[in-house]
Amino acid sequence: MTSADIRHMAHALTLGRRGQGRCWPNPAVGCVIVQGDRIVGRGWTQPGGRPHAETEALAQAGASARGATAYVTLEPCAHHGQTPPCAQALIAAGIARVVAPFEDSDSRVSGRGFDMLRAAGIAVTTGILADQAADAHAGFFRRVELGRPWLTLKLATSFDGRIATASGESQWITGPAARRLVHAQRSRHDAVMVGGGTARADDPSLTVRDLGARHQPVRVVVSRLLDLPLMGQLARTANDIPVWICHGPDVDPNLHAAWQGLGAQLIPCALRGRQVDPASVLQALGAAGLTRVFCEGGGTLAASLLEARLVDELIGFTAGVALGAEGRPSIGALGLEHLADAPRFVLAESCAIGPDVMHRWTRQSA
Amino acid sequence: MTSADIRHMAHALTLGRRGQGRCWPNPAVGCVIVQGDRIVGRGWTQPGGRPHAETEALAQAGASARGATAYVTLEPCAHHGQTPPCAQALIAAGIARVVAPFEDSDSRVSGRGFDMLRAAGIAVTTGILADQAADAHAGFFRRVELGRPWLTLKLATSFDGRIATASGESQWITGPAARRLVHAQRSRHDAVMVGGGTARADDPSLTVRDLGARHQPVRVVVSRLLDLPLMGQLARTANDIPVWICHGPDVDPNLHAAWQGLGAQLIPCALRGRQVDPASVLQALGAAGLTRVFCEGGGTLAASLLEARLVDELIGFTAGVALGAEGRPSIGALGLEHLADAPRFVLAESCAIGPDVMHRWTRQSA
Repeated sequence: MTSADIRHMAHALTLGRRGQGRCWPNPAVGCVIVQGDRIVGRGWTQPGGRPHAETEALAQAGASARGATAYVTLEPCAHHGQTPPCAQALIAAGIARVVAPFEDSDSRVSGRGFDMLRAAGIAVTTGILADQAADAHAGFFRRVELGRPWLTLKLATSFDGRIATASGESQWITGPAARRLVHAQRSRHDAVMVGGGTARADDPSLTVRDLGARHQPVRVVVSRLLDLPLMGQLARTANDIPVWICHGPDVDPNLHAAWQGLGAQLIPCALRGRQVDPASVLQALGAAGLTRVFCEGGGTLAASLLEARLVDELIGFTAGVALGAEGRPSIGALGLEHLADAPRFVLAESCAIGPDVMHRWTRQSA
Repeated sequence: MTSADIRHMAHALTLGRRGQGRCWPNPAVGCVIVQGDRIVGRGWTQPGGRPHAETEALAQAGASARGATAYVTLEPCAHHGQTPPCAQALIAAGIARVVAPFEDSDSRVSGRGFDMLRAAGIAVTTGILADQAADAHAGFFRRVELGRPWLTLKLATSFDGRIATASGESQWITGPAARRLVHAQRSRHDAVMVGGGTARADDPSLTVRDLGARHQPVRVVVSRLLDLPLMGQLARTANDIPVWICHGPDVDPNLHAAWQGLGAQLIPCALRGRQVDPASVLQALGAAGLTRVFCEGGGTLAASLLEARLVDELIGFTAGVALGAEGRPSIGALGLEHLADAPRFVLAESCAIGPDVMHRWTRQSA
């Protein structure tokens, strides 16, 4: 491992992130091909998941790939799917060395791609920037391992943790810089998710705006009874940008027909108590191919996800405003008896963003 | 103004801060005396407010003060109080030049000290690090201008703005690093203040611990009815470290006598609605000489201070734990109709502190 290896792998990880939110259920892989000290090819998994990053980078490199080093952020695939395996393509192009983050022994890697490369006489170096790659592919791995997407819960609150006044006013607690970052975060997720209460109270469109983005994440609403505004933003745009509604078993057939007519995808889920079971929701979303879901509340859905220990990452935006105890809570009732039972998260980063503070946390491992 | 002027003034401000919390009602001034490029004297306002910073620094400098430059963080006093004026002492010591942060035209400066120095042929440079000095002396100026101390409200909360579980468990939401910083903050304030509910629920001692500090801030409790635990920490230590109780007009005479017997100082305050009027409390504390008060909640007192627009600075510690809507709110009811009416603060700094996030805000000027 050299400092050049780390530099090129960091580059490949940056490229790979460009595919996040738009190549599910495939992983968002990046690839850099280096001949001597010259970068001759760069690629990332394309929208819809194909072509793969290696294919893109090899096409750019052309004949310069012969004898070059390929940096890929995940083990090249070894199976014939809709496309020939990438390991085969790297061999055919005459790549001399492949550098990847994960070791063969990593349970999330099959090792068959590495085997195929080694059998063809290609030098394989693994273990470069494995932690960063694990973060980049966390959604893909969550789905492979647990059948559900990685779940990020975002909460934009007042200083005292409120998301709206008693009368429901919430525009705007945080400033434009934070709201813009939220749009960037939406664009890097496969789906944006809210609860039915938020869909009714705010009538959100949940789209990515003002970023020049053409790709839009799926909009997911969790609503037990499907009692969502049929004339709202989501209803009006469901034919253009996917709207998936996770509902309970006891919905009005007319509402069901209406939402189907509007173009929404309806996903029946199990109940847990009186609410849609959040685990059932996430399993259904995983089965549908989602790897990264960005939940923006409200308080009831946030609480049900936290209570079920399904939140992988928490992103808070705290504004310098106090709303007081009558304000709407960012997290609903959790039914906690003791502080020791409360879900805990580990600080990943915090910074000022415009007039607000952003803080990001990840799940505390057991 | 030279870069050396800025450097020495920054040094003087650092020295001045050593007096914060222990020289009230006097300002915590710092002084550095520089002969050529050599520091020959350093001083700061001593506990109780005397000797003044200049006196300390001149005593250190001795004969080296002749022809030297004195950096002082506030205009040297010109009046005969319990000690001769510092302006006179600087003249007598043969100081050639005095550097200070505020201009003569600053409404918070009388200018008589500067006049006295200039009349004696001393060169006076003003306007060096005025913003920093304004922060350092904010408590002193608040009291001079408004008759009340600077008020910092500290809230250590869960991710969702709760200070305890429904059952009252609050130890510990934040980690040891944040708690240690709170002790350091207590030590730099003249007084620590809590509401009666917190005094009953947590039985706090409100002392500075584990910092090697010998000085302790005054403990202030706001309790309309004086119904505080007579066998608690505050009661037990009231003879050693001041306990001041701000109470309403309708207290039980026996409780009054008991607390007086325990050594507490009882401060009658006006009511506002059913609560002790927070403006009346702060005026009384200002009249008693306090310049910097550190309020640590609870939610009712925090809300009443915020509602009355009496909070100058907010310090939040946010932990990566969710307590849910049954948890105790950090800020009680504010009676807000609209988001636009909510008290707003401007971010001053934010950083990670141990496993938590610290964020500090100051009042938004009108």
